[in-house]
Amino acid sequence: MKRYAIIVAGGKGTRMGNDIPKQFIEIAGKPILAHTIENFYRFDPNIDLIIVLPQNQQEYWKRLCSIHRITIPHLVVKGGETRFHSVLNGLSLIPDEGIVAIHDGVRPLTAHRVIENCFHVAEEKGGAIPVLPLTDSLRQIFPDKSSKAVNRTAFVAVQTPQTFRVEEIKKAYKLPYNDTFTDDASVYEAAGYIPELVEGNRENLKITLPVDLAIAEIGLKE
Amino acid sequence: MKRYAIIVAGGKGTRMGNDIPKQFIEIAGKPILAHTIENFYRFDPNIDLIIVLPQNQQEYWKRLCSIHRITIPHLVVKGGETRFHSVLNGLSLIPDEGIVAIHDGVRPLTAHRVIENCFHVAEEKGGAIPVLPLTDSLRQIFPDKSSKAVNRTAFVAVQTPQTFRVEEIKKAYKLPYNDTFTDDASVYEAAGYIPELVEGNRENLKITLPVDLAIAEIGLKE
Repeated sequence: MKRYAIIVAGGKGTRMGNDIPKQFIEIAGKPILAHTIENFYRFDPNIDLIIVLPQNQQEYWKRLCSIHRITIPHLVVKGGETRFHSVLNGLSLIPDEGIVAIHDGVRPLTAHRVIENCFHVAEEKGGAIPVLPLTDSLRQIFPDKSSKAVNRTAFVAVQTPQTFRVEEIKKAYKLPYNDTFTDDASVYEAAGYIPELVEGNRENLKITLPVDLAIAEIGLKE
Repeated sequence: MKRYAIIVAGGKGTRMGNDIPKQFIEIAGKPILAHTIENFYRFDPNIDLIIVLPQNQQEYWKRLCSIHRITIPHLVVKGGETRFHSVLNGLSLIPDEGIVAIHDGVRPLTAHRVIENCFHVAEEKGGAIPVLPLTDSLRQIFPDKSSKAVNRTAFVAVQTPQTFRVEEIKKAYKLPYNDTFTDDASVYEAAGYIPELVEGNRENLKITLPVDLAIAEIGLKE
C-alpha cells in the first residue's frame, strides 16, 4: 500500500535558549529537519513526504534547502494552532487510501526497523506506535501539587512515527479538538480504534533541550 | 550537617549485551562507577562515600581501583537481594544524624547544582528528589495488555540522588519490604513523609543500554 509520512515541525525555539526554531538547528552539518526527512527518504525513496511548518518559517526553510542542497522531494503545508491542527493540515493533502506515518520533525534518529515495523503493523492491524520502557522512576503530580510514586513498569514512553491506515486516522481527526489529544494515538483511540504497540529505539530522542543536540550529533555521525 | 552518599551499584550486566556489570564498563578511560564517585567527591571532598556492591564483585572493584589509581576514600558494603536491601545495608554503616544522598552507581553525570539542591532542601524539609518533565508521550499498560494514553504533564521522571535526613530515611527503611518500593522516595513516602521535588538535570541519565554509553561519553568528555 502507498506510504506517506507527515513530518510535523512546529517548534518556535523557545526552550533551546536561542531564537532559531529547533527544527532548523544544524547538527552534523545540516538542519535537524533535513536529517529527519533524509532518514525517511533513505528508508523508502518512494515514500510521499509532507512537512508541516509554520507559515512564517516556510521561506526560511526554502532558503535552507537551497543552501544545503536538500533535493529530497517533499510537500510543505502550513502548521495550525496546535499539533492536532497541524496534523489535520498534513492529512488534508493525502488521499483516503494507504498508510501514513506521523512523525516529529525533531526526531532524526528513528531506526529503519522501527519505521518498517510501524508501517507493517499499521497495514495489518490499523495503527502502530513505537514505545519504550521507562528507565527513570515515575511520579504522578496532582492538581494540589502533591505527588505520589507510581509503578513505572505499568507505563511506556511513546515515540513517533505513529503510523495508521489513512482512512482510519482521517476519520479520527474529524473529532472535535480536545486537549486530552496529546499525540496521534490518543486521537485514534478517541475514535474507538486500538493502536498496536511496537518496540521503539532508544536513540530516537525528541530534540527538546540543548543537551539533546550533543546526543543527536553523535548518533548522526555514527 | 554531615553529608553522606550511598552509591548503589547492583548491575549484573545482562541488558548491556556483555558480561561485565554495567557499573564497571569504561567510558572516557574509567569505569562508570569511578566517574560517579568522583563526581560526588568533586562536589564535596568531605562527603562520606559508601558504595554498595554485590559481594562477588568487590575483589574486581578493588583491582579496578588499583589499575585506575582511584584513591577517593570510600567504604564498600555488600549488596542485598533487591535494591531495597542494598540501600538498607548502606544505611547500616552510617550514624543516625546528617543528610544522606542515595544515588545510582550508573548515573555519572549529575550536575553539582542538583546535588547541592537535594542536600539543601533535604536538610530544610526532610527529603528531596530530582525530577524532570517527560519529553515523550506516556501510555499506561493494563494487566490485560491493553493500554491507554495518559496526560504526560501529570507525571515527572524521577532521578537520583534521592536525599533525606538520615534519621527519617532509616525509620522508613525499617518498614517490611514491599514490591511497590520502586525507589527511595516510595519507601520514604510509605513511612508517612513527603519528599520535596527539585529540578533534575537532563544529562543525569541512568546508563542502562549500549546507546547510553555513547551519550554518557560525550557528557563526561565535556
